[in-house]
Amino acid sequence: MFSSVFEYLNETKKQIDAHISDFLPTAHGNPEIDFLYRLMRDYPMRPGKRLRPALCFLTCEMFGGKTQDAIHTATALELLQSWLLIHDDIEDESILRRGEPCLHHQHGVPVAINVGDALHCKMWEMLNQNVSLLGYELSFQILSEFIQLSNRVVEGQHIELSWMREKRWDVSEEDYWMMCVQKTAWYTCITPCRLGALISSTVKPDQLAQFVQIGSDLGVAFQIQDDVLNLIGEEGTYGKEIAGDISEGKRTLMLIHLFRSCTQNESAILKKIMSKPRKEKTEVEVYDVLNLMKEYNSIQYAEQKSKQFAKKASDGFDQVASALPGEPAKQVFKNLIDFVIERQY
Amino acid sequence: MFSSVFEYLNETKKQIDAHISDFLPTAHGNPEIDFLYRLMRDYPMRPGKRLRPALCFLTCEMFGGKTQDAIHTATALELLQSWLLIHDDIEDESILRRGEPCLHHQHGVPVAINVGDALHCKMWEMLNQNVSLLGYELSFQILSEFIQLSNRVVEGQHIELSWMREKRWDVSEEDYWMMCVQKTAWYTCITPCRLGALISSTVKPDQLAQFVQIGSDLGVAFQIQDDVLNLIGEEGTYGKEIAGDISEGKRTLMLIHLFRSCTQNESAILKKIMSKPRKEKTEVEVYDVLNLMKEYNSIQYAEQKSKQFAKKASDGFDQVASALPGEPAKQVFKNLIDFVIERQY
Repeated sequence: MFSSVFEYLNETKKQIDAHISDFLPTAHGNPEIDFLYRLMRDYPMRPGKRLRPALCFLTCEMFGGKTQDAIHTATALELLQSWLLIHDDIEDESILRRGEPCLHHQHGVPVAINVGDALHCKMWEMLNQNVSLLGYELSFQILSEFIQLSNRVVEGQHIELSWMREKRWDVSEEDYWMMCVQKTAWYTCITPCRLGALISSTVKPDQLAQFVQIGSDLGVAFQIQDDVLNLIGEEGTYGKEIAGDISEGKRTLMLIHLFRSCTQNESAILKKIMSKPRKEKTEVEVYDVLNLMKEYNSIQYAEQKSKQFAKKASDGFDQVASALPGEPAKQVFKNLIDFVIERQY
Repeated sequence: MFSSVFEYLNETKKQIDAHISDFLPTAHGNPEIDFLYRLMRDYPMRPGKRLRPALCFLTCEMFGGKTQDAIHTATALELLQSWLLIHDDIEDESILRRGEPCLHHQHGVPVAINVGDALHCKMWEMLNQNVSLLGYELSFQILSEFIQLSNRVVEGQHIELSWMREKRWDVSEEDYWMMCVQKTAWYTCITPCRLGALISSTVKPDQLAQFVQIGSDLGVAFQIQDDVLNLIGEEGTYGKEIAGDISEGKRTLMLIHLFRSCTQNESAILKKIMSKPRKEKTEVEVYDVLNLMKEYNSIQYAEQKSKQFAKKASDGFDQVASALPGEPAKQVFKNLIDFVIERQY
């Protein structure tokens, strides 16, 4: 069912990885700088779906554009993902990323912060290359999209960190959707689609605007599925430690559902466990939480919600897509929406 | 002697602070995002010299340009300084910044990393505003200058962090100059001057190139004086904890000189003390190192070197300046070079 999606993601991955590899600096006479260059290649070269570049390419194609025109922009989305993940992993005290120890576990927090900053700078450098490819006007429009998205993503991240820091467990589903849209949907779905459409140069303002809702729904579906996989995935396939979100104390839809569904007594125990710093949580406690989620069907509930959001994204997409020429890309995009909620990694 | 410099810095500060204050978002309906906005204003609004914007304005003026044209660019230099400092303070485990506790001491490392990222994004957003002020071509040139500088500053930072992480105490003066130029001189002096000159639109390529050497010399002089002040300054004036660099284990010119000058026995003790993590160093140990520096005239040596670099910068500047029209700006720039090595804060 997803063969067209896998094919598209693989093809995208090849192009993006090659472009990143050509772009990032390789060697330096100074041994320390040389080592920095090696570290800068680490996260971007780890296995990953390259979902964001693929969404950008697909939208570009379905509006009749050429993916070559989107190469710098799509690659910049992957560089964005890299610096965000490096910093996120420090902030969340994560252990594994894409099957390997997080950068700060290998080289310490100070070096990892700086490598993230280095890749952040490289993202803007990549976008600056658009001038010779796309001209000034479109290049600046693309920069503006990245600025908008960056503002959202740091806001979403701050909301989540605040909940953690203030030990807030009274987060509502509405709070959670808002955080998801800011933190995940903008950079994962909304902006990649908008960028692809802009680069095609055929998109009308109202079509561009529609991708905010479509991308928002798809992004939330993606995030929920990501959190579900964190609980029930297989470590080898998923690339992070299983139930790491519980160890981290992350607010997920499952947890919000569980808090709403369990007894007062259970809720008090839950708060106590979840509020403990990662290092103080025992494995037994993590599994107690996980089992409680299973008992109250919280995971099922989240999967259902994820499907609802994906359906909404799909319906919204159909409305935009009916007027568009790029047939194969449209179909792959539709399949990709299903893939987002069915994927195992 | 420095009244013209103080006047210029004060005037610059007023303009830059007002521009930052207008630019950064103020309020948000979501309480978490609202708080993020407050944190984003913290570092940029702390007292500081606004040296980088002032260098940008001065160079613009002496090439016959208008400082209004440089307002976004000069302000972006101050935003750069803010996100760099927030991340640096985490990386160096600093305690005080500009007279107040560092951001990560007040709100934790995760929140502080993210606030730094938020200001990093805002820097590029500020630069994007240049389009309507300066047109596409010049705006993209300015972006390219910022990209060049960003690449340098993360490289310089990585060199310093590597020395720390690898407990390297065999750093030579040449290693140190190289690190200083990358980490400090580019963003503090070289690029601010080049940007001001570019914005005037009258600078010739060879003049632009000369500011690499001038800014490099001035930047190194600045860094040495900064490190000297860290040892002998007054906490209230200087804004950081005195001898904090020794607690942090920072490689400074004084330390390199001391390692070269002291006995083998002293060197062994020095290494042992300096390699200890900040928290394990006693106050007595810090003062032992400081006293050894005094005994071997390491601070005097550094002050001499700082003066030599400033003299070189001044001579280089005279060569460029002789052909330039902006008389008052030229004189203030000259005085500012002296101020850099004579300042007490």
